[in-house]
Amino acid sequence: MPKPFVFVNVAASLDGKISDESRRQIRISCEEDLKIVDELRAASDAVMVGIGTVLADDPRLTLKNKELRGRRLREGKDENPLRVVVDSRCRVPLNSKVLDGEAKTLVAVSRAADKEKIKRISEFAEVVVFGEEKVDLKELLEYLYSRGVERVMVEGGGKLISSLVSEGLVNEMRIYYAPMIIGGSDSPTVCNGKSRIVRCRIVKIERIGEGFAVIVRFD
Amino acid sequence: MPKPFVFVNVAASLDGKISDESRRQIRISCEEDLKIVDELRAASDAVMVGIGTVLADDPRLTLKNKELRGRRLREGKDENPLRVVVDSRCRVPLNSKVLDGEAKTLVAVSRAADKEKIKRISEFAEVVVFGEEKVDLKELLEYLYSRGVERVMVEGGGKLISSLVSEGLVNEMRIYYAPMIIGGSDSPTVCNGKSRIVRCRIVKIERIGEGFAVIVRFD
Repeated sequence: MPKPFVFVNVAASLDGKISDESRRQIRISCEEDLKIVDELRAASDAVMVGIGTVLADDPRLTLKNKELRGRRLREGKDENPLRVVVDSRCRVPLNSKVLDGEAKTLVAVSRAADKEKIKRISEFAEVVVFGEEKVDLKELLEYLYSRGVERVMVEGGGKLISSLVSEGLVNEMRIYYAPMIIGGSDSPTVCNGKSRIVRCRIVKIERIGEGFAVIVRFD
Repeated sequence: MPKPFVFVNVAASLDGKISDESRRQIRISCEEDLKIVDELRAASDAVMVGIGTVLADDPRLTLKNKELRGRRLREGKDENPLRVVVDSRCRVPLNSKVLDGEAKTLVAVSRAADKEKIKRISEFAEVVVFGEEKVDLKELLEYLYSRGVERVMVEGGGKLISSLVSEGLVNEMRIYYAPMIIGGSDSPTVCNGKSRIVRCRIVKIERIGEGFAVIVRFD
């Protein structure tokens, strides 16, 4: 079954951390990187995050730059890419920014999710069910493709990225490394969950502001 | 008190891991990087590791390249740099390669170390005592400087690097990133221990084999 092109974008410290032990939101990206991230979002049909990221950071996942939104409209697209939340147990809070109606949102849950909660979330977003205990990511991606989503940008967190990478579902990854060390044995990293070595190929390395970005391909 | 120039060298996956959950030794560096590491060792007066690295990897820490050893001898130095093991409780096994007599070795312990074990290790290495429960790294570095060590290369692990970075004792760090994701919430990373954000400045980024190396300065 065809799937969209899956592109992961993440910002980390040099030691691979995306936050510290307290899991608070740390400003890792620089201004220059945030502009590039906005452009990458604009070029995607969907922006995907895991529920952990929604609970920790409450991201809006819409385009910051009005010009980019205008460009999408002129191209006959929605103003913002579809927001996709991978949320096996349907824990997304009703007051989350991803449910603010500013852009279309799809919440992917598993059959283990509470039916009552699904019903409430359905007032704010489309809810789809894939997988028993955990969202079946392959099925979700295939569904997205059938809905016209050809390019998905995954913005974290470490657990969702880990699942996608170890299931061989990622085509490309871009990591922005900030000139800092965060440290911490318990700090979340770019890739959490269970360890599994997956090799890739470096396509590009470029200086961005005071940090740098690396683009790799899994193929 | 004057201290040596402290230079950290480490090889990691793109997600900052130096091993997987089982802490087994994973070949992260490529051939090209290993050659550079040997040259960096040859240019150092001491090579330092934490006891965790000795227990996990049993490294020899001597120069692989005979020419580099010859060059050091011609320069009036010892054939190999001094090997320094930071080992607060004196846990270094008697059959460790760092105690093989191939190069001078210094084991730094704290006052919490077992006296009897210190006595046994003293047959194979110089043992110095700094700090109560943990080795006082600043005192150790000052001692090394008083012994003529002007340049220390730290080769891991994540806990020793973390302590040195958060105590502001590192001047320069070189990280070789291999084109791979290791993943794992419990995999050791470049910088473990307690999290503490420390900023640095990128000096150089270069492609090495199929990976790349980044050199940063803390100043």
